[in-house]
Amino acid sequence: MFNGLLWQSSNHSNKTIEYIFMQHSPLNQIVTNMRTIDWDNESNTVIMVDQTLLPNEYKIIECKTLSALCESIKSLRVRGAPALGAAGGFGMALAATLSSANTMEELIKNLEIAATTIKATRPTAVNLAWGVNRVMHAVLDAYDVDGIRDVTIAESMQIADEDVAINKKLGENGAKLLDDGDTVMTHCNAGRMACVDWGTALGVIRSAVAAGKQINVIACETRPLNQGGRITTWELMQDNIPVKLITDSMSGHVMRKGMVDKVIVGADRITEDAVFNKIGTYTHSVIAKEHEVPFYVAAPVSTFDFEGWEDSVEIELRDPDELRFFGKVQIAPLDVEVYNPAFDATPMENISAIITERGIFEPPFLIDEVKM
Amino acid sequence: MFNGLLWQSSNHSNKTIEYIFMQHSPLNQIVTNMRTIDWDNESNTVIMVDQTLLPNEYKIIECKTLSALCESIKSLRVRGAPALGAAGGFGMALAATLSSANTMEELIKNLEIAATTIKATRPTAVNLAWGVNRVMHAVLDAYDVDGIRDVTIAESMQIADEDVAINKKLGENGAKLLDDGDTVMTHCNAGRMACVDWGTALGVIRSAVAAGKQINVIACETRPLNQGGRITTWELMQDNIPVKLITDSMSGHVMRKGMVDKVIVGADRITEDAVFNKIGTYTHSVIAKEHEVPFYVAAPVSTFDFEGWEDSVEIELRDPDELRFFGKVQIAPLDVEVYNPAFDATPMENISAIITERGIFEPPFLIDEVKM
Repeated sequence: MFNGLLWQSSNHSNKTIEYIFMQHSPLNQIVTNMRTIDWDNESNTVIMVDQTLLPNEYKIIECKTLSALCESIKSLRVRGAPALGAAGGFGMALAATLSSANTMEELIKNLEIAATTIKATRPTAVNLAWGVNRVMHAVLDAYDVDGIRDVTIAESMQIADEDVAINKKLGENGAKLLDDGDTVMTHCNAGRMACVDWGTALGVIRSAVAAGKQINVIACETRPLNQGGRITTWELMQDNIPVKLITDSMSGHVMRKGMVDKVIVGADRITEDAVFNKIGTYTHSVIAKEHEVPFYVAAPVSTFDFEGWEDSVEIELRDPDELRFFGKVQIAPLDVEVYNPAFDATPMENISAIITERGIFEPPFLIDEVKM
Repeated sequence: MFNGLLWQSSNHSNKTIEYIFMQHSPLNQIVTNMRTIDWDNESNTVIMVDQTLLPNEYKIIECKTLSALCESIKSLRVRGAPALGAAGGFGMALAATLSSANTMEELIKNLEIAATTIKATRPTAVNLAWGVNRVMHAVLDAYDVDGIRDVTIAESMQIADEDVAINKKLGENGAKLLDDGDTVMTHCNAGRMACVDWGTALGVIRSAVAAGKQINVIACETRPLNQGGRITTWELMQDNIPVKLITDSMSGHVMRKGMVDKVIVGADRITEDAVFNKIGTYTHSVIAKEHEVPFYVAAPVSTFDFEGWEDSVEIELRDPDELRFFGKVQIAPLDVEVYNPAFDATPMENISAIITERGIFEPPFLIDEVKM
């Protein structure tokens, strides 16, 4: 019944994927504390949790080629802004390792092509481009071909290590905003599975729990790909943090009933005027404002787009089949027209605070302040 | 692959269903203009479109027993406020026909038990109880056992005929609120398939189109049972009315982008202070208010609960498995806690007008005015 393509559009071809099953745990078995994405030094490949299989299966896959990695990014096997930063970095390491270039010029040319290819997989996700660019920039310090290869690996591992440290710091900062006994609503998955480890929105919750506070979570399922229902619930249950699942459309009802004390979401890109995050975030922000529920965004500084404004950001339109099928089951007329933006923009006036590793920023949000 | 239980919880038993397949059309074949629910005089049974199968299959099923009818109501084979009014009436006709009672006293006792049983299937849906009570009341005019049986059939058929006439009138009234070129957002299915024919919210759209106006529709898929994605889209495409499918969570984004001119939804119950409708309606109403988009409710007068207030209405909590499974496919941890209310309450201040067969009512909404 289960074919590993559940969360992809039904008409996707599986031909370009080159992964092997390294680990395969039945659901509800305790998951080892492995990072969601990592570089495997022995095989020189990128390994990751295949998040399209959660919560049915916890499986580690290995991307041996750049096309396999790009396919994994596109089909959301790895997703979440900070994790994509690491994916972008590791993608560059993979490209450098696989390249047969003998000259620095040739290798850098190969890396430039790889950079373009990787960034094109999720054009709205600023962290992906950030990770790619950071490795590309680090390469300038290398003095020969092997040096370039070493730098791509070292720099991408550094991105992953820093991400964990950043999320822990961000979590500590944000935990101060949560009170013992709070019920926190979240959308999509800004958790361990969206990062290398710990999480942003869920990292704040984890840090509050680690500090001894009792926190209850309401997870919105997050259509169309149900990252909230599949991943956030699963992650929190692994940590024994109480979580209740609702449909996205219930946010109004639960807030009107006084069931939500705070909302925390992650972010894919933050411009001077807006927060880009999973489609549905803006709707929740309006509902929170209506009910005077604090609406927090938790994101590392790498999410800030210091040059961009809302109007300059292209919103990725995803495959219409995501709304026509659940896996292979048809749920709408085959030829129905579909509008399927991956993200929406929440204007700053709907946001109570942005939680970063550098501190908590409250309105008015000045990007210059974050930069310092 | 398809087993007819797609939209039920996975752990439901199929044992109580006693229906036969009378008609079975492949998808996209032109559908005859049959009513969604009707009484079959030859077999003395209730026939209906099995809406759990849409849009994959258009199939007419026959309920030969009261338990089959109740199962069909509970599992949403027939759903939608006005259609449930007819279902309640036909259920009483079925109970009267099947009863072996020889005395009026005995038959009325049987009908009272049937009335309780039918009403308990969907406690929030006021029309269901209304249909049941109307037939129960009509029975008081009968003078013998056969007379009672005849009255139950005649009265329930009358309910169905009146529903079609009411929706046509309601549609005509509401069509005046729509302008040529409007894009109208709707939630769930308040269409032909929610009624005996024509529809309430979609009836208004149909009447506007019949009057020569070009209307585009945005249909919210309506989690967790996707009546918008499965039924509203299908219905409108049958009528060649342009429709675009979105997730429920996109309502904020599309309204912020100026893509919606008006919202029209149906209602399951209207009290003096609130409109009860499919979960998610309240969220859309807040979004519409934020963007100054008119928010209309289209419902027959039978939807008004002249005695009730919001606080007196019990909101039906549905099976948690509706959020844990798509049909048989697991989409959340098996043991995750779920909150799954079927309806929410939208306070009157969020509503621009209520469209009924007796006219358009604008705030302040006085139930006495509707009664007259």
